[in-house]
Amino acid sequence: MARGRYPRERQGGWATRSDLLTLTTPTLDTVHLPADLRRLQPEELRTLADELRQATIHAVSKTGGHLGAGLGVVELTVALHYVYDTPADKLIWDVGHQCYPHKILTGRRDRIETLRQGGGLSGFTKRDESEYDPFGAAHSSTSISAGLGMAVARDLSDGDNHVVAVIGDGAMSAGMAYEALNNAGAMHSRLTVILNDNDMSIAPPVGAMSAYLSRLLSSKQYMGLREFGRGIAERFPKRLERAMEKWEEYARGFVTGGTLFEEMGFYYIGPIDGHNLDHLLPVLKNVRNAKDAGPVLIHVVTQKGKGYDPAEQSADKYHGVAKFDVVTGTQKKGKPNAPAYTKVFGRTLSKLAEADDKIVAITAAMPSGTGVDIFQETHPTRSFDVGIAEQHGVTFAAGLAAEGYKPFAAIYSTFLQRAYDQVVHDVAIQSLPVRFAIDRAGYVGADGQTHCGAFDVAYLSCLPNFIVMAPSDEAELAAMVATQVGIDDRPSAVRYPRGEGVGVEMPEHPAPLEIGKGRIVRQGAKGARGAVAILSLGNRLQDALAAADRLGARGLVTTVADARFVKPLDGDLIRQLAESHDLLMVIEEASIGGFGSHVLDFLARNDLMKGLAVRPMAMPDRFLDQDKPEEQVRLAGLDADAIVATALDALGIDAGDRGNSDDKDAPARA
Amino acid sequence: MARGRYPRERQGGWATRSDLLTLTTPTLDTVHLPADLRRLQPEELRTLADELRQATIHAVSKTGGHLGAGLGVVELTVALHYVYDTPADKLIWDVGHQCYPHKILTGRRDRIETLRQGGGLSGFTKRDESEYDPFGAAHSSTSISAGLGMAVARDLSDGDNHVVAVIGDGAMSAGMAYEALNNAGAMHSRLTVILNDNDMSIAPPVGAMSAYLSRLLSSKQYMGLREFGRGIAERFPKRLERAMEKWEEYARGFVTGGTLFEEMGFYYIGPIDGHNLDHLLPVLKNVRNAKDAGPVLIHVVTQKGKGYDPAEQSADKYHGVAKFDVVTGTQKKGKPNAPAYTKVFGRTLSKLAEADDKIVAITAAMPSGTGVDIFQETHPTRSFDVGIAEQHGVTFAAGLAAEGYKPFAAIYSTFLQRAYDQVVHDVAIQSLPVRFAIDRAGYVGADGQTHCGAFDVAYLSCLPNFIVMAPSDEAELAAMVATQVGIDDRPSAVRYPRGEGVGVEMPEHPAPLEIGKGRIVRQGAKGARGAVAILSLGNRLQDALAAADRLGARGLVTTVADARFVKPLDGDLIRQLAESHDLLMVIEEASIGGFGSHVLDFLARNDLMKGLAVRPMAMPDRFLDQDKPEEQVRLAGLDADAIVATALDALGIDAGDRGNSDDKDAPARA
Repeated sequence: MARGRYPRERQGGWATRSDLLTLTTPTLDTVHLPADLRRLQPEELRTLADELRQATIHAVSKTGGHLGAGLGVVELTVALHYVYDTPADKLIWDVGHQCYPHKILTGRRDRIETLRQGGGLSGFTKRDESEYDPFGAAHSSTSISAGLGMAVARDLSDGDNHVVAVIGDGAMSAGMAYEALNNAGAMHSRLTVILNDNDMSIAPPVGAMSAYLSRLLSSKQYMGLREFGRGIAERFPKRLERAMEKWEEYARGFVTGGTLFEEMGFYYIGPIDGHNLDHLLPVLKNVRNAKDAGPVLIHVVTQKGKGYDPAEQSADKYHGVAKFDVVTGTQKKGKPNAPAYTKVFGRTLSKLAEADDKIVAITAAMPSGTGVDIFQETHPTRSFDVGIAEQHGVTFAAGLAAEGYKPFAAIYSTFLQRAYDQVVHDVAIQSLPVRFAIDRAGYVGADGQTHCGAFDVAYLSCLPNFIVMAPSDEAELAAMVATQVGIDDRPSAVRYPRGEGVGVEMPEHPAPLEIGKGRIVRQGAKGARGAVAILSLGNRLQDALAAADRLGARGLVTTVADARFVKPLDGDLIRQLAESHDLLMVIEEASIGGFGSHVLDFLARNDLMKGLAVRPMAMPDRFLDQDKPEEQVRLAGLDADAIVATALDALGIDAGDRGNSDDKDAPARA
Repeated sequence: MARGRYPRERQGGWATRSDLLTLTTPTLDTVHLPADLRRLQPEELRTLADELRQATIHAVSKTGGHLGAGLGVVELTVALHYVYDTPADKLIWDVGHQCYPHKILTGRRDRIETLRQGGGLSGFTKRDESEYDPFGAAHSSTSISAGLGMAVARDLSDGDNHVVAVIGDGAMSAGMAYEALNNAGAMHSRLTVILNDNDMSIAPPVGAMSAYLSRLLSSKQYMGLREFGRGIAERFPKRLERAMEKWEEYARGFVTGGTLFEEMGFYYIGPIDGHNLDHLLPVLKNVRNAKDAGPVLIHVVTQKGKGYDPAEQSADKYHGVAKFDVVTGTQKKGKPNAPAYTKVFGRTLSKLAEADDKIVAITAAMPSGTGVDIFQETHPTRSFDVGIAEQHGVTFAAGLAAEGYKPFAAIYSTFLQRAYDQVVHDVAIQSLPVRFAIDRAGYVGADGQTHCGAFDVAYLSCLPNFIVMAPSDEAELAAMVATQVGIDDRPSAVRYPRGEGVGVEMPEHPAPLEIGKGRIVRQGAKGARGAVAILSLGNRLQDALAAADRLGARGLVTTVADARFVKPLDGDLIRQLAESHDLLMVIEEASIGGFGSHVLDFLARNDLMKGLAVRPMAMPDRFLDQDKPEEQVRLAGLDADAIVATALDALGIDAGDRGNSDDKDAPARA
């Protein structure tokens, strides 16, 4: 599936060692907003782009974040803001992880070193951050749909602004992009789609669309078509003439069809060198000036990481980076104390698959993010990357399950939202044993709202036939994956957090768990001042134990249980906790509607609440901005402090009343 | 968007008046399973198809159901079972609503008159109904994904069976089909996709794909290509030769690309007349016999409703039908007592839009099913049918909302599952005021499990920024739609049931409701034997009132409240009910995780349950088969009987203890 690489070009666009050390940006310093940029002479734009590239590298070296994608669109960003009248013209960046240069040019340079940090700039486009971000993003392939909506709104209002959506080749494998092309092509609304083809989404490109784009770029016609594209653009519009040509093709009895995008109703221009402003500017101007062109797709070829050697050499590694040394490119990652959940999943599955040749793994364009890359190394023929195509991926897994295989569909919590109907309709209703490995469940830190795995417990646990688990540490994850292998008559899901485990010893051979059974981790006795039980789901267990210590020091002997299963619920455990304690706290790093709701339902149906105070602790009813994960947990009121404060409040104990203890508590929060 | 119609052909395939009256099927009578069919001589198949068509018409005239789709694939069904060795070869019908002839041929003829009825055959394919249904369906566009999974499973197991997916042209507008084509084309797995092009999904076709298929069929090349398709098929396989030709095209500096499907990596054959067995059989045989062909797409042209005049003349009306007179085609629909919720929505929106030119409506290929057709008549420029493309449709609506429009996205409860990530990521996170009109919420009757709107309350009410409502009657629906018009800072959803309202008077000008406020419909006093409150969401109100009557007759004076809002929750109302009653019942026609869960969460956090019995009544944790809606509600334990029984059980009153009443209660259920 190798794609024709665009030959590297060193005319401009290259950050030298001395550029990187000094960061002198006299031209960029004059540009505070795109209006300033539009006052520059065209010949100054090359310099501006070079300085913008340096500024981007510098910023990301201090903040970490998505580097390669932004470097690939530096010239495109400059050209778009130069040609289009932003923000009156709407510029929509698909995914939005390539928007750092855009942010620098649109009034946010002074805050660029706060990227992805608490209180700082989002790592993606965001409507409430700037009027230059007309539509926020972070998940892929939404830009054409949003852009078409804006184009239709303009037409209904008799407006005359332009709408431009910039979408990567990787994002084109998602069905949503196709749905939007299909609709836009038929509606003939004035909309410009820029296909930013960098031959690389996050992982190597997969799918027929990728192969198709390769063919468009393949040696023989690339140079010819590039010129052809410019030529066409200069004579643009000439749709009528082309329609005539097409009719002749039909009359000859052949369906040639031009490019795939033309079949979809778009006027296709390209491929164009996306780092060459002399190519970009005239094409964009011509498209902008065309009045009745309908939807236009401009195929722009760029190089991810362009102009920064470490990023160019390793596009995958530089997709998302930690802070790094700006000259050497060495990333400053802290040494982890424990293996990441992602790796534990990958290693466990890989090992289990040695003994079971029915195990297969599916990823939707996230092999390294999900740990499927580890499985792929050991079991290449049983590993499937379907592209950014979660809907297809889940039903593909269902097809494998229908034929007796044991598919593990490894998909992030929020990305699985893309496949919810497939989970319901193809998996749950048919009770097919697809195994879901749901990474990035709970707060995820710097990626913020859009990647926060909040809803999976609610949207899966309401489904009949589903088994839903969450591990409290990495050894539990291994045990749950082993458990899933044996669940052969229904779907199952394990949801686990981003980041590293808690550092427990890993079993050599993880043993499957008993389905639907939790465990008591610490047994409290009836305390003098009241007995508290904390029933924790997943990774909140460590904070629950810390809170129990502090409550114990106040004379509140506290039981802590690890639920393991949301579904089936461990009714015996819940009954036992309810009957022998004064307060039952139920905690999870997930939204309402999930574990706490199932526990409350059980308590109510069994009349277990009459003598019991119950406190469900779940994510609050708001989306939290990016921040450190532990800070997000604190803000959400789900840390040890919050557990202690909630317990004291429920029991009517003043937070200042320390009993016999010298324990230092945080004040109770609302 | 008119598509080239395939010229009607009367050679065979036509049910005469006398055929229909007598239903004599000597050939079909010999076929109990496809193995019997494969023992027939090819020249007997035409007769078999004619008899199968008659049998299908007869069956549906008695049961109601999807008629046109099945009639369109009678010959294709016969041909596929003749050529392929089902069930060893896997035959997957996309959507599955065209499978009645398939069911008749696969051992289910004796039960065909139980279609879509309680205890009878499903109206769709279903795995646990027959080994000839290798993958169940009902929602569109899943078949290629499932088929690819089965093809990969076969290859991993060194099997040699065939996998054939039959998918309609309408289903090709869904992104999921594209994701699957994209992946299958790249994997080069041996898989046959039959594109059943009947120029008509449910509504008139929309989208560029439809226009593209039209061009493939357009006058000049249709006949030629049909022969060409047969010719190619007879010389098949010759991929190598074609690859050489393709290379020559590139060498000439042109990208011609053949058809769109070839660009996606499929070997394209067609168009083929799908009613002509002499065309179908040799093509299918050749494709079956090709060993290294990779994925093949056979473009088959059929006519929906083929061979039955009333259905041919009105493909839309005969998509789904009531029972009908077999000769005249007159449908035997009962006269409704009240307008359907669907029509109330359409009329209300249409009227409100007269005074507000920002109101626009979006449907995903269901204009009449959602009532958007009514809006479209009065506001054609503000009505958008995006095709079977819920993902795109929702984000398209978000783009309109971002530009100040008031989009109403009218999508069935279960179809909105297709767009869940768009609802979260593009609408809720950005707090864009997209208005969701969610029809088919709750049990839907004959369409069964796959169309049961069970999960919307759970999957929407967990989202920050959302307002979620459910009307208890059709006047309430009108008021809620009026309320949505004014909700301009966040998304809102109204979920309402399939079918007709309860017959209340409709207001001339529906007034908006106060956000987050429910209402007490009947105030009970503290009864001698205990006070009961029933808090009902949506359409359960009528049964709640009936149950209250019966409880009152036993001396249990019962308060009944209509919650109106799931979110924001009416805390004052809940507190009032909790504090003045002994038992609070919370009822909704939806899954766990929804309204009841939110109420329980509120009760627990506010310590309102200590002296209170609470009974959440929601859908049970299983998928219910098709049946009459009222029977589904009864089976679910959500009718008046169940409310009474649950109340008595909760209060410890023996069901036989009638107090002073002569009320006749059903026994309590588990």
